[in-house]
Amino acid sequence: MPAKSSLNLSGNRFAVAYRLSDSLEAAWARAQDICFEQTVEFPEELLPAGEIRDHLVGRVEALEELEPGQVEVVVSYAVEIVGADLTQLLNVVFGNISLKPGVRLERLELPESLLQRYRGPRFGREGLRDWLGASGRPLLATALKPVGLTSHELAEQAYQFALGGIDIIKDDHGLTDQPFAPFRERVERCAEAVRRANRETGGRSIYVANVTAPGEEALERALLAKAAGAGGLLVCPGLTGFDTMRRLAEDDRIALPVMSHPAFLGSWVTSPTSGISHHALFGQIMRLAGADAVIYPNWGGRFSFSRDECRQIAEGCEAPMGHLKPAFPTPAGGMTPERIPEMSVFYGQDAIFLIGGGLHRDGPDLAQNSRRLVDLLLQYR
Amino acid sequence: MPAKSSLNLSGNRFAVAYRLSDSLEAAWARAQDICFEQTVEFPEELLPAGEIRDHLVGRVEALEELEPGQVEVVVSYAVEIVGADLTQLLNVVFGNISLKPGVRLERLELPESLLQRYRGPRFGREGLRDWLGASGRPLLATALKPVGLTSHELAEQAYQFALGGIDIIKDDHGLTDQPFAPFRERVERCAEAVRRANRETGGRSIYVANVTAPGEEALERALLAKAAGAGGLLVCPGLTGFDTMRRLAEDDRIALPVMSHPAFLGSWVTSPTSGISHHALFGQIMRLAGADAVIYPNWGGRFSFSRDECRQIAEGCEAPMGHLKPAFPTPAGGMTPERIPEMSVFYGQDAIFLIGGGLHRDGPDLAQNSRRLVDLLLQYR
Repeated sequence: MPAKSSLNLSGNRFAVAYRLSDSLEAAWARAQDICFEQTVEFPEELLPAGEIRDHLVGRVEALEELEPGQVEVVVSYAVEIVGADLTQLLNVVFGNISLKPGVRLERLELPESLLQRYRGPRFGREGLRDWLGASGRPLLATALKPVGLTSHELAEQAYQFALGGIDIIKDDHGLTDQPFAPFRERVERCAEAVRRANRETGGRSIYVANVTAPGEEALERALLAKAAGAGGLLVCPGLTGFDTMRRLAEDDRIALPVMSHPAFLGSWVTSPTSGISHHALFGQIMRLAGADAVIYPNWGGRFSFSRDECRQIAEGCEAPMGHLKPAFPTPAGGMTPERIPEMSVFYGQDAIFLIGGGLHRDGPDLAQNSRRLVDLLLQYR
Repeated sequence: MPAKSSLNLSGNRFAVAYRLSDSLEAAWARAQDICFEQTVEFPEELLPAGEIRDHLVGRVEALEELEPGQVEVVVSYAVEIVGADLTQLLNVVFGNISLKPGVRLERLELPESLLQRYRGPRFGREGLRDWLGASGRPLLATALKPVGLTSHELAEQAYQFALGGIDIIKDDHGLTDQPFAPFRERVERCAEAVRRANRETGGRSIYVANVTAPGEEALERALLAKAAGAGGLLVCPGLTGFDTMRRLAEDDRIALPVMSHPAFLGSWVTSPTSGISHHALFGQIMRLAGADAVIYPNWGGRFSFSRDECRQIAEGCEAPMGHLKPAFPTPAGGMTPERIPEMSVFYGQDAIFLIGGGLHRDGPDLAQNSRRLVDLLLQYR
C-alpha cells in the first residue's frame, strides 16, 4: 500500500500507518491507546506533565476512514525512543500491539535522521546487476535440493545450473549443517563448482549459501562462506531475527549480497486485518534489515499470496526510503518455466525469478533445462 | 491443547500436531503436502527412491476429525534433518507452511534424542523459588516504567518495590539503551537499589534487566547485567529471534533466570486457524528457548487472550518435555491488585503475577502499594 500522503514531521519523529478494523469513533480511541501502549505503557492519568507526555508518548498525526469499519491512522514516535536498535524500532512499531487483533501495520515513514543508522541493501538492484554482469533483463535464480543429497551431488547440480546460465544458484533454505552435506564441505564444493562452470562459460553466476543458524553460528557460517568463495548469503530472518540478517549484510568482512527467505514469517501476513502488510514486511523491513533480494511466494504457485499482495511487495522493494537502495522482488514458490512470460509482464525487468523444483521437470539434464529457461527469459524480456 | 495421545515413535523421529481447516479428504492431501513442503520441498514424482524418500520426507502418523472442517494431523520428521539448531527445528516445524493459511501448529512431541540438545529453563519453577526464597505461594513481579525516566528515578522505583516485597522487579521491555537512562547506568543503579532494599528488609528480591538488543549487543548487555548484579534477564524473542534467548539462557558465564516477553509475537496467535497455538508458542517453544518465566497478556486485561488460551499457556509451561524443567506462566497486561483473588484461583501457586502500571494507581508510595499487594496475595494463596 503506497503512502497516501507524506507527513511533514520534524527530523526527530518517525511515523507508522496502521489499518484499524474499527468505526471512526472507535479508531480514534484505539489510536490513542496505541500512542501509550507502544511507548510509555503506563496509565495516561498517572503520567506527569512534561517531556515524557509531550514528546515520548506517540502522537496521532492522521486518521482517515478507508471504508466503513476500516480506518487508517498515522502515529508518530520520537526517534530517541528507538535509538539505533532495529529490535527496538520493531518493538515500538509493532511490539505489544501485535497482540491486539484488528491492528495491521501498513507502512513506515522514516526520516533520514533514523535511516542514517541503517546501511540497507549493500548492493541493491544496480549493484547486484553489476556483480552478475546482467543488465536489461530480469535475473534468474534456482535452488539446490532436495535435502538429503551429498555435498558432491549438490555441487554437481550447482555446476549444471551455472553451466546453463542461471545467475543465482542458492541453497534450499532447508540445507543447514546436516550430516548428509555438512555446511563447510557443501559450501566449498558448491562455490568451487560454480567457479568451474564460470571458467568454462565466461559467465558470472554466483552460489548463495544458506547461513541461517543459531546465534553466532550464522556469522561464523557467513565468514566461512565468504572464504569459500560463495557469491551471496541466504538468510531466513523469521528464524534468526531480522537483526541477525542486518548484521550479516552490514559486516564489511563479508560484503556479499543478501537474499532473504520468508520461512517462519507467514503468520504476519495471513490475516488482512492483523499483522503486517506485505509492503512493509517484505519491502520496507527487509530493506532495513539489509536484503538485496527478497524471496516470497508468487501468486499462482503453491502458496496463497494474491497478485495484489505481490504487487505491494514489489512496490515496497523500491519505495523511497532515503539512502536505502531498492531490493529485487524475488517471486518463487512453485514457479515453472511456463510462468516466465506472465511474470515478465507483471514484474518487468527489475525482479529475480526463482524457479526451483520446476527446473527438474524437463528431464535430468539440468544444464540444458537451464539454457532453455534462459532462452525463454530473453525472448520475453 | 494437551496431547491427544502419545505416539510410539522411534528415537530418530519427532512429531508435530497440526490443526487443518479442511474436510477429512482435503486434510489427507494437505498432510501429504506438509510432509514434502517442510522437508525436501521437491516434486514428489521426481524424488528418487531410497533414504530421502523413506526417511527424510515427513510421514503422516495420525489424522483425526475434531469437528466438521477441522482435522488434526500428526506428522513425524527425521531428527537428523534438524540437527542441533533451534532455527532449523522451527523451520522444519513451521517454516514454509506458516505461509499457507488454514494450518495451525498445535504441539510438539520431541524425543529425548532431540531434547538432549537443549538445556531448557536453567532454573525452572523450583530453581527460581529457591533463588527467591519463596515457597507455597505465587510470585509477584512488577515493571519499571515509563520510558523517559532517568536511571536515578527508575532505581528509586526499584528500591521502593523491593522494600515493599515484590519478588521480581523487571525493566519495562521498552527500556533498552535510550539517552534518558543508558543501559549500563540504569542496570547498575537498579541492581544496586534492589540490593540495598534487600539488606534493609532481609528479602531476596531480584532486578531483571531487559537485554533485548541487536545481535551481539544482547550478549554483551547480558554480561554487563550479570556483572552489575542483576538477578535475571528479560528477553523479547519475537524481536531477537528465539535462538538468541536460548543462547543467553544456556551461557554459563551468565547463569541467570530468563523471563520472555511477548512483544512482536502477536501475529502468531491472533488467528484460530493459522499460526501457532498458545500451548506450543508460549509453552513448549519458550521452554526450548530457555525461558524460566513466560510473560503473556492475561485474560480480562488490555489484551484479548481468552481464559482458555491462558489455561493452554499454563499447561504448555509444565507439559512433560523430557528433562526440560517447567516454566512459570506469568500473566500480565493491565493486571491490577483487584485481580489477585481471581488469578490465584485460576493459576494456583505456580505462577508469577506481573502487575505494572496497576501498582501506581494507589498513590505515590510504591513501597506501601507493594506491601498491600503482598498482603493481598498471602491472603488468597
